[in-house]
Amino acid sequence: MLIVMHKDATPAQVARVCNTIRAMGLAPHPIPGAQRVAIGITGNKGAVDTGRLESLAGVLSVIPVTQPYKLASRETKPEDTVIDVNGIKIGGGSIAIIAGPCAVENLTQAMTIARSVKRSGATVMRGGAFKPRTSPYAFQGLGEAGLKILKKIRRATGMPVISEALDTDNFQLVESYVDIVQIGARNMQNYSLLKKAGRSAKPVMLKRGISSTIHEFLLAAEYILAEGNYQVILCERGIRTFSDHTRYTLDISSIPELKRITHLPVVVDPSHAAGKRDIVVPLAKAAIAAGADGVMVEVHDRPEEALSDGPQSLTLEMFREMVGELKAIVRASPRRGLRPRS
Amino acid sequence: MLIVMHKDATPAQVARVCNTIRAMGLAPHPIPGAQRVAIGITGNKGAVDTGRLESLAGVLSVIPVTQPYKLASRETKPEDTVIDVNGIKIGGGSIAIIAGPCAVENLTQAMTIARSVKRSGATVMRGGAFKPRTSPYAFQGLGEAGLKILKKIRRATGMPVISEALDTDNFQLVESYVDIVQIGARNMQNYSLLKKAGRSAKPVMLKRGISSTIHEFLLAAEYILAEGNYQVILCERGIRTFSDHTRYTLDISSIPELKRITHLPVVVDPSHAAGKRDIVVPLAKAAIAAGADGVMVEVHDRPEEALSDGPQSLTLEMFREMVGELKAIVRASPRRGLRPRS
Amino acid sequence: MLIVMHKDATPAQVARVCNTIRAMGLAPHPIPGAQRVAIGITGNKGAVDTGRLESLAGVLSVIPVTQPYKLASRETKPEDTVIDVNGIKIGGGSIAIIAGPCAVENLTQAMTIARSVKRSGATVMRGGAFKPRTSPYAFQGLGEAGLKILKKIRRATGMPVISEALDTDNFQLVESYVDIVQIGARNMQNYSLLKKAGRSAKPVMLKRGISSTIHEFLLAAEYILAEGNYQVILCERGIRTFSDHTRYTLDISSIPELKRITHLPVVVDPSHAAGKRDIVVPLAKAAIAAGADGVMVEVHDRPEEALSDGPQSLTLEMFREMVGELKAIVRASPRRGLRPRS
Amino acid sequence: MLIVMHKDATPAQVARVCNTIRAMGLAPHPIPGAQRVAIGITGNKGAVDTGRLESLAGVLSVIPVTQPYKLASRETKPEDTVIDVNGIKIGGGSIAIIAGPCAVENLTQAMTIARSVKRSGATVMRGGAFKPRTSPYAFQGLGEAGLKILKKIRRATGMPVISEALDTDNFQLVESYVDIVQIGARNMQNYSLLKKAGRSAKPVMLKRGISSTIHEFLLAAEYILAEGNYQVILCERGIRTFSDHTRYTLDISSIPELKRITHLPVVVDPSHAAGKRDIVVPLAKAAIAAGADGVMVEVHDRPEEALSDGPQSLTLEMFREMVGELKAIVRASPRRGLRPRS
Repeated sequence: MLIVMHKDATPAQVARVCNTIRAMGLAPHPIPGAQRVAIGITGNKGAVDTGRLESLAGVLSVIPVTQPYKLASRETKPEDTVIDVNGIKIGGGSIAIIAGPCAVENLTQAMTIARSVKRSGATVMRGGAFKPRTSPYAFQGLGEAGLKILKKIRRATGMPVISEALDTDNFQLVESYVDIVQIGARNMQNYSLLKKAGRSAKPVMLKRGISSTIHEFLLAAEYILAEGNYQVILCERGIRTFSDHTRYTLDISSIPELKRITHLPVVVDPSHAAGKRDIVVPLAKAAIAAGADGVMVEVHDRPEEALSDGPQSLTLEMFREMVGELKAIVRASPRRGLRPRS
Repeated sequence: MLIVMHKDATPAQVARVCNTIRAMGLAPHPIPGAQRVAIGITGNKGAVDTGRLESLAGVLSVIPVTQPYKLASRETKPEDTVIDVNGIKIGGGSIAIIAGPCAVENLTQAMTIARSVKRSGATVMRGGAFKPRTSPYAFQGLGEAGLKILKKIRRATGMPVISEALDTDNFQLVESYVDIVQIGARNMQNYSLLKKAGRSAKPVMLKRGISSTIHEFLLAAEYILAEGNYQVILCERGIRTFSDHTRYTLDISSIPELKRITHLPVVVDPSHAAGKRDIVVPLAKAAIAAGADGVMVEVHDRPEEALSDGPQSLTLEMFREMVGELKAIVRASPRRGLRPRS
Repeated sequence: MLIVMHKDATPAQVARVCNTIRAMGLAPHPIPGAQRVAIGITGNKGAVDTGRLESLAGVLSVIPVTQPYKLASRETKPEDTVIDVNGIKIGGGSIAIIAGPCAVENLTQAMTIARSVKRSGATVMRGGAFKPRTSPYAFQGLGEAGLKILKKIRRATGMPVISEALDTDNFQLVESYVDIVQIGARNMQNYSLLKKAGRSAKPVMLKRGISSTIHEFLLAAEYILAEGNYQVILCERGIRTFSDHTRYTLDISSIPELKRITHLPVVVDPSHAAGKRDIVVPLAKAAIAAGADGVMVEVHDRPEEALSDGPQSLTLEMFREMVGELKAIVRASPRRGLRPRS
Repeated sequence: MLIVMHKDATPAQVARVCNTIRAMGLAPHPIPGAQRVAIGITGNKGAVDTGRLESLAGVLSVIPVTQPYKLASRETKPEDTVIDVNGIKIGGGSIAIIAGPCAVENLTQAMTIARSVKRSGATVMRGGAFKPRTSPYAFQGLGEAGLKILKKIRRATGMPVISEALDTDNFQLVESYVDIVQIGARNMQNYSLLKKAGRSAKPVMLKRGISSTIHEFLLAAEYILAEGNYQVILCERGIRTFSDHTRYTLDISSIPELKRITHLPVVVDPSHAAGKRDIVVPLAKAAIAAGADGVMVEVHDRPEEALSDGPQSLTLEMFREMVGELKAIVRASPRRGLRPRS
C-alpha cells in the first residue's frame, strides 16, 4: 500500500497521514522525492481501510502495491535513489568506482594502493578486515586492526571506505569505522544481520547471493528498508552455474532488470565473478554499458603476493587503464533516468 | 596432521601428546574410537616437526592429512560417528526418522502430530519456532513460545526434539530447549553461527546450502568440529538447478559420496527438496536405499491449513505408510559399515 | 483432444471415428488399452467440432487434453505402457536390467561380458557401436562391425540388444541390427532423428538431455509418438548442475514425476550420472526404490582397460551383487499401478 | 601438432610438407596467415616423428599443441580469423549487425523489416525458414518457401542472409540459398551435422548449446574445422541456469574467454538470452563493450503479431536507436587485436 501526496502537501499533512497509519496498527515509511512525498505502508496482513486515508488533506492517491517488495519497488518510488557518501554520489547517473585490495594486509600496502587508485579515478576505497572464508583454517583478515588502517586511509586521502560486516556481533564495530557497510553474498539471507543493517545510519551495500533469484535479492533488500534504512546499494557479483571457465557467471541481465524494478543503485563486482584478472576489465566495461551505477574491483600493488584473491586482482596500471575505458563508455552512452518497460 | 595412538595407550599418554601439541602452538583434538584414540591437529600453517611427536610414548604413527577437512574426514576417523540423543542413536546403522510440522503453530496441533508420528515410528520430533523467511512480511514463527511447546512434547512423548537456531543471538535460547539444534541451509556459511554451534554441548544438524558443493559443505561442518563439538549430523535437502518440476533437485549422489569421505551421519530432507507431497515418499525411499542414516520429513494433521509449507507436508496416514516402506527397504538392504572406494 | 470409446466398441466403429477425424483434416491415433480404446487427435490448431465426433457410434466421451503432450499423457492413456522386446517386458511392474560395455570393443570382450551379466540377471544387453564424442579426435566406435557383434551376442545368449543411432543417416542401419534403438542425450532435441524414430517399428529408448526440463523431455517423446511409434522408453541419466562431485546430478525426483504424468516406462542410467564406479550401485538402488522400471548400467570385464568410460564401469562381480540388491528392494517395495496425485 | 612455415616458404614447400604428413598417416590442415602459413596436423594418436618434419625445406618450427582444440586455437593461428561474406567482414575489428525476424512469415513482412534494418545499419539479414520447435504441434517455419523469400531479399537489398539448417537432410538445401548457414544451440553436438557443415563452402555460424562449457563449444567448432571449413563464427546466446528473470543467462564472460583462446569471430545473440524486448538492448551494448565481433538480434515490424518470439523482438525504431548506441560504444572503446593473458 502506498500513499502519494500532493506536490504542495505540507510537512504537517505528511505527519498527520503517518499518525493515522500508526493509529491503524501499521507502519508508515515517508519517502521524499524530488517532486512529492510518497508514504509506503507495511505491516498490513489483509485489506486496509483506504477510504480513511484518501480523505486526509494532502493525499493525492492511495495505490495498492502488488509486488512483495514494497519499499524497494519503483512503483513506490519512481525516482532513482541517490546515496551521498561524504559528498560522493552513488546512483542517479553518477558512476561509482570502488577499488582496493581483497584484504587489508598492512598500512603500507593499503596506503600504496589507496593513493594509486585515487589518482586513477577511484571514488571509494574497499578493503576487507573481517574475511568470510570457506575453510576454518584460512586467513580470516586483520579484524579491527584492518578497520583502523581503513580509517587512516580515509583521513589521508579523503576517500570514503567500505568493508564487510560478518555478523550481528561485529556489525557495530565495522559500522563505527567505515562509510559503507558491506553485507556479503553468503549473508544475503542472514535475516538477523539484515535487520541490524536496517537499523544503521550508514549506507549498506548488499551483495547478491550466488544462487539467489532477483526476487529473493530484492526481498533481502526489503528486510533492510523495512527497518528504516533506505540507503541500500545492490551489488551483482556473479551466480553459480555449470559454466566453469570463470569462478561465477556474471548475470549481466540482472542490471537492466533490477534498474527496471527498483530505484536502488546497482553496482557490479566483476572481480569475484571472473576469478581471473584478464576477464575483469571486459566485464567491468560490459556492466557500465548495460547501465550499472558503478563497479567494485579488487586492485593490488603486487597481486602475486596478495594474501587472498591475488589471481583476480588488477594491477595498479590495469586499473588506471580500465577507469579511462569506463569513462569513455559513459560518455558514449549517457545515463538516462528511469526508462519504463515499453 | 593426525596422531594415531596405540590400542593400549593410556589416558596419561594421550594427555601428554596433547600437551606437546599445545606447546608447539597448535590445537589437539583427541578423537576416541572403538579400537584406539586418534588426535587431530589443527592450526598448522606449514610443516610440523613430526619427529618430536613420533617419539612420544603411546604414539603409533603420525599421518599427514591432505584434505582440507581434517576432523570431518574418514582418514582421521575411519569409524562411523554415532550420536546418542537421549538414547536414540543417529548414524552407524540405525535409521533416524525425524518428523513433525514445518512450524509449531500451537500446542494442540503439535501434540496431535507428535503423538501420531511417534505411533507410526518417528524417533525425533521436528518443529520450527524461529522460521527464516524470504520475505520480511511473512509469518516468522512463534519464537520462544514454540520452543516451550516442543519442550512439553518431549516431556509427554519422550521423543527428543529438534528446532532451528537462526543466529548467534538466539542460539543459546534454542539450545536450552531442544535436543538437537538445526542450522538451516541459508546459514550454512554463517561462520559466526557455526563457531557458536561448535562450542555447544548439544548435537547439531547442519543442512547443506542450496548451492554448496560437497567440499564447501564439509568445510562448514569442519568449522563446528574445529571448535570441539564432534556431534554433527549432515543433512542433504536439495540443490538449486534449472530443473523446475520440484522446488530443489535432491542430490541423491551426495549420500554415498559423503558416506565415503566423512564419518558423520547423513540424513535427508525430502520435503524441502520436493516441494509437493506426492514426491516426498519416493525420495525418502530412494534416500534410504542409497544409504542415508535417516530422513527428516514434514508432517501435518491438516496440511491444507498449515501456516507454512502445507503443500509439501505429508498427512499422518501417508507418514505411517512411508515408515513401513522405509523399514522394509532397510531390511532388504542392510546397512554396512565403511565401504572404501575400490 | 481425446476420444474415449465404449468398452464394447467394435473395430469397425473405431475405424469410422478415425476416418471422420481424417476427414476433418486431423490425425487420429488409436491407443488400445486393457479396457477400452482411446483415440488421440493431433493436428488441430484451434477449436474442433466435437459435436460431430460425440454423435458417432461407439464414442463414450470427447475430452479436451490441456497438456502440450497429448499422446504421452496419462490423461490420454491411464494404464502403464508395457513394451515387449522378444518376450522381455519393460514397464508395468517388471524391472528391466540393461547391462553391457560402454562401447563394443571386440567379439571376445562383448561375449565375455554378455554371458556374465546374463548369468547375473541382466535382461537386455547394451553396447555402443556408434559413439557420440565431444572431441573429433576421440575413438568413435566400431560402427557396423560393432552392430554385427551385438547380433552374434543376441543369437548366442537370447538377450535382446540395444545400441545408439547417432543420426538420420545411420538410423536404418542401427535399427536393422538391434532390438531397441537408443537416442542419446545430445540428440534429445534432434527433431529429424525423433521423427525418424517415430516411423520405426522398433522400440526406442530416449535419454533426457542434460539440461532439459521434464516438460521438454516429454515433448521430445511426443515427437516420436506423434509419428505413430508408441514404444518409447524414457531414460533419466543425470542433469548438468554446479554440483561437481559426480559428472552429472541424477535427478531422482524425475522418476515419480514422470510416472505421474506419463504412461511410458522410465529407466535410469546411473553410470553416466555418477561417472565413478562406487557411486553407481547406490544410485541404482535409489532409482528402483523411487519407482523406476529398470536400470541401464555399464559393465566391463576389465574396466581399467576399457576404451571409454572405464572409471564408471562396474566389474562383473559388482554387477552380480547389485542385481541381488535391486531384487531385494523390489520384493520389499512392490510396484504399484498408477498412483494419482492426492 | 603444428608446423610453422618460414615467412618466405613457397607453395611447393608447403605442398611437400603436406604430402609428408599424409605419408605418415596423418591429416594436414594448411592455415594461411597474413605473415606466414601454418599447418595443423590432426589424426595423431600418440607421438609424431617431429625430426622428419623439422628437416623439410621451408619449415621454421614444429610445435606441440596441448589443447584438445587444435585448429580453433590461437596457439595454432594467432591472428583473428576474418570472414568475408560478399564483401561484409566478420571478425578482426569489424562489428557485424545481424538482424531480422525470428521466422520469415511472408515476403511483405520480411522485405519491410529488411529495408528498415538495412537503413538503420544492419549488415546481414537473419530469418528462420526451418524452425526447431520444442513441441511437434508448433509452427515449424515456411521451409523452402522461406528460403526463396530470403533470396529475394538479398537480391533487392544486397545484404547477405543467414538461416538455420536443422539436419543433414536439409543442409544442402539451406546452403544453396543462404550466405551463412546457422547451426542452432540444440544441434551444437549433432556431430553428423557438424561434419556436413565442415564440408560446406559457406561460412557457418555455430551457436553455443544452452548447457555447453566453453571447452565443449570449441570442440564442436573443431568438428567443423577438422573437415576443412575454416569459416566458423561462434555465437553466445545464453546458458540455462536457475536464474529465472530472463529466458537464459547471457554468459557475458564467454566473450573475452573465447577471444583469448580462439581466433574465430564471436557474435552475441541477446534476443534469445533475454526473452523480453527491454533487456535486449542493454545486453547488446554489454556484448560490444566486452569485445564481441557483432550481435544478432530479432527485429519485427509488428512484434505483437509475430508468429514466434514476438515478446523478444525489437521494434524497427528500437533497433535503429540500438545501432546508434552500439556504434558509439565501438568508437569509445576501439577494438584491439589479440591481447594475450598477462
